[in-house]
Amino acid sequence: MRVVALVGGTGGAKLAEGLQAVLPPGDLTVIVNTGDDTERHGLLVMPDHDAVMYMLAGRFDFERGWGHVGETWTVMDALAEYGEEDWFRLGDRDLATHIARTARVREGRCLTDVVRSLQTALGIPTPILPMADEPVRTQVRTDDGWLDFQEYFVHLRQGPEVREVRFNGDLTPTPAVVGALEAAEVIVIGPSNPIVSIGPILAGPVAGLVAGRARAGIPVVAISPIVGGVALKGPADRMLLSLGHESSARGVARIYRDLATAFVLDTVDTDQEPDIAALGFRTLVTDTVMADAAGRARLARAVLEFVA
Amino acid sequence: MRVVALVGGTGGAKLAEGLQAVLPPGDLTVIVNTGDDTERHGLLVMPDHDAVMYMLAGRFDFERGWGHVGETWTVMDALAEYGEEDWFRLGDRDLATHIARTARVREGRCLTDVVRSLQTALGIPTPILPMADEPVRTQVRTDDGWLDFQEYFVHLRQGPEVREVRFNGDLTPTPAVVGALEAAEVIVIGPSNPIVSIGPILAGPVAGLVAGRARAGIPVVAISPIVGGVALKGPADRMLLSLGHESSARGVARIYRDLATAFVLDTVDTDQEPDIAALGFRTLVTDTVMADAAGRARLARAVLEFVA
Repeated sequence: MRVVALVGGTGGAKLAEGLQAVLPPGDLTVIVNTGDDTERHGLLVMPDHDAVMYMLAGRFDFERGWGHVGETWTVMDALAEYGEEDWFRLGDRDLATHIARTARVREGRCLTDVVRSLQTALGIPTPILPMADEPVRTQVRTDDGWLDFQEYFVHLRQGPEVREVRFNGDLTPTPAVVGALEAAEVIVIGPSNPIVSIGPILAGPVAGLVAGRARAGIPVVAISPIVGGVALKGPADRMLLSLGHESSARGVARIYRDLATAFVLDTVDTDQEPDIAALGFRTLVTDTVMADAAGRARLARAVLEFVA
Repeated sequence: MRVVALVGGTGGAKLAEGLQAVLPPGDLTVIVNTGDDTERHGLLVMPDHDAVMYMLAGRFDFERGWGHVGETWTVMDALAEYGEEDWFRLGDRDLATHIARTARVREGRCLTDVVRSLQTALGIPTPILPMADEPVRTQVRTDDGWLDFQEYFVHLRQGPEVREVRFNGDLTPTPAVVGALEAAEVIVIGPSNPIVSIGPILAGPVAGLVAGRARAGIPVVAISPIVGGVALKGPADRMLLSLGHESSARGVARIYRDLATAFVLDTVDTDQEPDIAALGFRTLVTDTVMADAAGRARLARAVLEFVA
């Protein structure tokens, strides 16, 4: 069963890991948000891609909630001594990813091929496809004006309210993304922030491709990142509210109503199930909190059985 | 006394450290070879500059003979896992230097300003000036053809015989180099490989500037890197022989005869003193082996007293 998952952020990465664990190698393809990408110290940093890559390689630091397990900070401390900005912390192991990636991209290789070379070096059977080869940079408008995403997300710790979101750059999907979607038998929209994790992926032609697949009868199943009204991690709940949405599974379902055909919500939100079904979704109510590897595999299996 | 030292390699860096130790802060300017520079993993690596920088910051790893003291190798090991070449070992602390430098140069700042920003961050009072802001890359011709310098020096461990040397790039000295030489009251040519450490510095217009200063009566003193017929470190001895020179203090003195006015040789080579004097040099015979900080300061003081 060829499954394509659209993800960004930790929740999406966890689901991707669960899907990889329960599917035969090669059946899963992950399309990852690149709107969070940034350049730090001249190096191309791809937080969403790398969260998925480390997760699928079994190297994600679950204790810290981001980055590579067993990380050290020698380079970062030395960069700070040289007067480099250090609010965006990059570990030594993680920096090797950025250094190798940046060097290979600067040689003229396309981003998709470059990151695949990193993934295969870590033994990952699942292609993790950047949504675009050309740079896309998410910006959020706060009461103090437009900010680069990582300025808002990391430097300001998601303090300001988000009034508007935009995606600067070339949203043209890569040939690999188009091919994966065209071959997909199931499309999964991960439990990721619908505004800034899934939003950039769907802002360009990908939305039309997904909708077309749904019309062709392929299940497109979205999983709510909001449980009991709050985001398990990150600012999705506050962002939904400040942008005029409801911070709930139902609010997320409304965002995906023209795109997805099925929706997965948490058991704590069972009372919202009728409203979500009324939007035209097939629904699955299940435990969506992925506390560990068993939880990730359990949710992945439940989602696949639901749409099978 | 405004002293300008031309250096490259460990011997030159040691003398520079000795000169900095005995001169008032600001009196010393170091002009450093950039022909050894190379790009590794997309980062600008400057071995001769960094040897001097770490030495003048009291951070040189004397035990290993290169690089930053207390170095770790996390990034390098991770780069190797990604399939990056790893014969040119870059430590974590050292990589921070290359990352910060490369980022600042890519922003469009000139190399001289960029490396000075690194030096001042490490508290170094002495300007360490790259001989040129534009890339110069030394190549050596062996029996197998032309090789990039670091391919010969590090990868092949100086195994092949060197038949010819060339310096590719723009040898135009920087305004800072020209200014330092014009203001110099003493010019010191460090105990560095005359072919590939001092050679690139003197291959362009700097030779004429130095010779002009000598004609104006400014002492230009060269220190032999060859002691008892051998190089204390590196391939200078073999390289001198394979390029048709004598591997001796006298052989080095002959190379500098049109440029320097004074020559310092080691006591073990006392018997060569008359030949060197006969070339027109004022001579100083002294212990030139710098075993420790006291030895570096001692040689620096001896050289300065000799030319004063």
